[in-house]
Amino acid sequence: MPRDRIRLKSLWDRITDAEEAALHVRDGMTVGMSGFTRAGDAKAVPAAVAARALHDPLKITLMTGASLGGNVDRELTEAKALARRLPFQADPTLRSAINRGEVMFIDQHLSETVELLRSRQMGPVDVAIVEAAAITEEGGIIPTTSVGNTATFAILAEKVIVELNLSQPAALEGLHDIYIPTRRPHRDPIPVLQPESRPGLPYIPVDPAKIAAIVVTDRTDSAASILPGDADTAAIAGHLTEFLQSEVRKGRLGPSLSPLQAGIGSIANAVMQGLADGPFSGLTMYSEVLQDCTFDLFDAGCLRFASGSSITLGAERQRDVLNRIEHYKPKLVLRPQEVSNHPEVVRRLGVIAVNTALEFDIYGNVNSTHVGGTHMMNGVGGSGDFARNAYMSIFVTKSLAKGGTISSVVPMVSHVDHCEHDVDILVTEVGLADLRGLAPRERAATIIRNCVHPSYRELATDYFKAASARGGHTPHLLEEAFSWHLRLRETGSMLPREMVRA
Amino acid sequence: MPRDRIRLKSLWDRITDAEEAALHVRDGMTVGMSGFTRAGDAKAVPAAVAARALHDPLKITLMTGASLGGNVDRELTEAKALARRLPFQADPTLRSAINRGEVMFIDQHLSETVELLRSRQMGPVDVAIVEAAAITEEGGIIPTTSVGNTATFAILAEKVIVELNLSQPAALEGLHDIYIPTRRPHRDPIPVLQPESRPGLPYIPVDPAKIAAIVVTDRTDSAASILPGDADTAAIAGHLTEFLQSEVRKGRLGPSLSPLQAGIGSIANAVMQGLADGPFSGLTMYSEVLQDCTFDLFDAGCLRFASGSSITLGAERQRDVLNRIEHYKPKLVLRPQEVSNHPEVVRRLGVIAVNTALEFDIYGNVNSTHVGGTHMMNGVGGSGDFARNAYMSIFVTKSLAKGGTISSVVPMVSHVDHCEHDVDILVTEVGLADLRGLAPRERAATIIRNCVHPSYRELATDYFKAASARGGHTPHLLEEAFSWHLRLRETGSMLPREMVRA
Ligand SMILES: CC(C)(COP(=O)(O)OP(=O)(O)OC[C@H]1O[C@@H](n2cnc3c(N)ncnc32)[C@H](O)[C@@H]1OP(=O)(O)O)[C@@H](O)C(=O)NCCC(=O)NCCS
Ligand SMILES: CC(C)(COP(=O)(O)OP(=O)(O)OC[C@H]1O[C@@H](n2cnc3c(N)ncnc32)[C@H](O)[C@@H]1OP(=O)(O)O)[C@@H](O)C(=O)NCCC(=O)NCCS
Repeated sequence: MPRDRIRLKSLWDRITDAEEAALHVRDGMTVGMSGFTRAGDAKAVPAAVAARALHDPLKITLMTGASLGGNVDRELTEAKALARRLPFQADPTLRSAINRGEVMFIDQHLSETVELLRSRQMGPVDVAIVEAAAITEEGGIIPTTSVGNTATFAILAEKVIVELNLSQPAALEGLHDIYIPTRRPHRDPIPVLQPESRPGLPYIPVDPAKIAAIVVTDRTDSAASILPGDADTAAIAGHLTEFLQSEVRKGRLGPSLSPLQAGIGSIANAVMQGLADGPFSGLTMYSEVLQDCTFDLFDAGCLRFASGSSITLGAERQRDVLNRIEHYKPKLVLRPQEVSNHPEVVRRLGVIAVNTALEFDIYGNVNSTHVGGTHMMNGVGGSGDFARNAYMSIFVTKSLAKGGTISSVVPMVSHVDHCEHDVDILVTEVGLADLRGLAPRERAATIIRNCVHPSYRELATDYFKAASARGGHTPHLLEEAFSWHLRLRETGSMLPREMVRA
Repeated sequence: MPRDRIRLKSLWDRITDAEEAALHVRDGMTVGMSGFTRAGDAKAVPAAVAARALHDPLKITLMTGASLGGNVDRELTEAKALARRLPFQADPTLRSAINRGEVMFIDQHLSETVELLRSRQMGPVDVAIVEAAAITEEGGIIPTTSVGNTATFAILAEKVIVELNLSQPAALEGLHDIYIPTRRPHRDPIPVLQPESRPGLPYIPVDPAKIAAIVVTDRTDSAASILPGDADTAAIAGHLTEFLQSEVRKGRLGPSLSPLQAGIGSIANAVMQGLADGPFSGLTMYSEVLQDCTFDLFDAGCLRFASGSSITLGAERQRDVLNRIEHYKPKLVLRPQEVSNHPEVVRRLGVIAVNTALEFDIYGNVNSTHVGGTHMMNGVGGSGDFARNAYMSIFVTKSLAKGGTISSVVPMVSHVDHCEHDVDILVTEVGLADLRGLAPRERAATIIRNCVHPSYRELATDYFKAASARGGHTPHLLEEAFSWHLRLRETGSMLPREMVRA
């Protein structure tokens, strides 16, 4: 069976077990692994590396596409095998180690990692460990449910270890479009002119001599940890749908809008699902992670085509989509994240970008990463690739977190991932703020009126008034800008004690 | 004489005076003017609008390429004629009005303004007022020392007023390349593959019927207000030159480096001039404003070609360059700022971007715009277009400002224009911090060691130590993050009183 999928027969003798393959990974190495938001990650060899590290200490720099599934990041962290980690993660154990300063985490715009490797500003890559659905006659690697940074890792690595995953349908072949930008100073335009463009190859071209080991596995991708929508996400979706409809009425957008990008997480997923209730048709996505919402929109008949870098689904959707992959395949393409997120393409296509904020401030600056300004949640991911270059950059969040003890709209964000210039529209369940063409003082008035939860509205208004009296293009009271965050730390709530009692 | 330059004879009868032409500008209108960093701005009609507004009140939205010369922004501000101003300015009187909240200033990435107009997210443009060196047989407008947003303003405007400036050499014709990106959803790649690419027209195509008035002028551009270099800028240039040399030695860059962008201001100008002392040859620029440094590098024989959106020079250089424009013309092109700053092209060419920070923090976040977090200086300009998409993003500043009472390296910047992800290299006269591939804690150690002025180094170290003890990926003490800024406001210095005395 596995041999059917290794069409270059001279590679058959590279089949080995995970423990053996893991020996290629040694202390001090830089390792590139497949995997993007739990999809298409290498499953067996990384676990074997972690198991070995428990008794035979080693430290590596681990690069991936984005977050991994299974318990790979946890196991490697527990085995103290991670010296450095980039460009994204979403594992609680690793997150704690990062926040204790034990693992050096390099949080990057997801389109940039391989650009840095290619120009030798980072690297070299010693070993690439990549999941495959098959290997072609020439030794080309067919990825599975994600492309991420896998292609460039494999192309640049000294050695490649392939995990051939039999649980991934062979019919995934043909889903991928592997286009690698040419090298500077002779780089050509990226020939992606619409979401469905396919300028690349359906496999990752690697020299078969570099394939050092092939490990056969059959574990499925970890299911997405997405929560179902609720009244708040429905309200956010409602505001957004209404707004997009009004843009259509004004003639700024057609009924198929512009290609859509949707960030990771429960909120963005629920919001996109909500578009199915709008009057839109012939929608397209030019996104990064294709979540459940993508397939809901397909099934609702309003989505025509989706381009992404990974397919990350809940358990039920995952079985369904993989079983019916031939049905969905003509409407899908998976690309390297460098291309799915490329500023050039995002700007050319005029993407409408919808990403989630942890918190934003009354002037429209967004924090997507740092809880309390200091503690890393996941990473900036692709949000900056999209928000800066989008036709329209939208950020969504619930107005409250942690039972109302946190307002997600604050006087000043404790960390800035997206500055006001990169934020056009903000939405909470309270309402939508259209910031286009507004100066900071106008933004503040709009955001406080439309997005802040009523329980924090007066506090926010007071801050803005007092700050405005002191003057400035962007009025602030620096001595009070973080007072809500400090109160939270001291009292457990951003609300002053007398208001909590009331 | 002027008629020689109006080659479409049917336009001769549109010649009028500035006062008459100014009548086309009426209360409530949106006006787009030529002008980019003092170069190629309309000089007579805006002054006439301001003069009229003194007795006949009107308020307009004024859009330009970037800052204007002469006293146009001051006069319009004093006449209370500005309701809204975008996307950049650098005038002390206007700046004060913005900071008092009297003029709504919309600070934008310079590549984005016309994108918003084209997609009708802003606008419409009622009147465009543009300086020209000539009008072609078909009514095409030949710009002068800048292109900025002039082309799109003129193309989209209901009416166009041309200022034919006889002080600008007729030989400027042929210097410009007017390429306008095609409309979405059918946008083609921007066909700029190297700094010298010329995919566009040498003039701005407009329907001659829209040309409502032609005013003949002869005032020269305002000279740049650039200060000469000093020991600090020489030290910054020295660190940067040494660093770039070491990149060449490591084989990451060739001796002609990668196309260079240099931000506005005295420091960036002095730093670029310093490159003439390096061992580089065949350099190119893909920049926005071409300052004195560009022509110094040409004359030193190390610059091969420069692409920009304006030529903004000191008085002496201006006379020299305009007199010898035929000599420089084959090595120069001026483009719309949408193209000079286009993320697609900046990323494709692999630009090395050098911009100036007002302040940066120990983690590498940069503030380019807001003094004390609240008061607008000039605007973000093109710095974000370049920094996000550059091959290498460099920010420079002197480590101290205002006689040492201000440290330009602070625990936390009071406003973020460029987040740590967009900042690779920081340079002060103290030294250079190479942040590539570093996690925040490593960045802090490097920045404190290499960039902070010795008089603030212990303070910065203490902050970082105390913050690190509290934990987090990016350690901070939110209650003290702005303590230096607050001390400055309270005592006139960021240094604690006991240290000032010592
Ligand atoms: C911001 C982000 C964490 C939100 O995730 P989400 O699943 O949609 O949203 P949730 O509301 O469930 O928030 C996640 C957690 O943050 C907490 N949170 C939300 N707002 C908060 C705030 N202002 N302060 C502190 N914690 C907050 C929530 O309580 C929740 O905590 P829990 O995990 O303990 O329950 C996530 O979207 C992200 O990592 N974004 C950055 C990367 C990105 O945008 N990529 C886009 C391109 S793929
Ligand atoms: C940041 C910027 C203002 C620096 O300008 P510059 O002329 O090179 O630098 P200077 O050191 O002369 O600083 C200008 C002023 O800021 C003051 N300044 C510098 N650092 C400061 C700080 N940390 N806090 C307060 N003021 C500061 C200087 O004292 C000086 O004041 P003055 O005008 O009263 O003398 C300028 O580069 C800018 O506006 N940048 C943003 C736009 C941009 O980057 N465009 C690039 C693409 S064109």
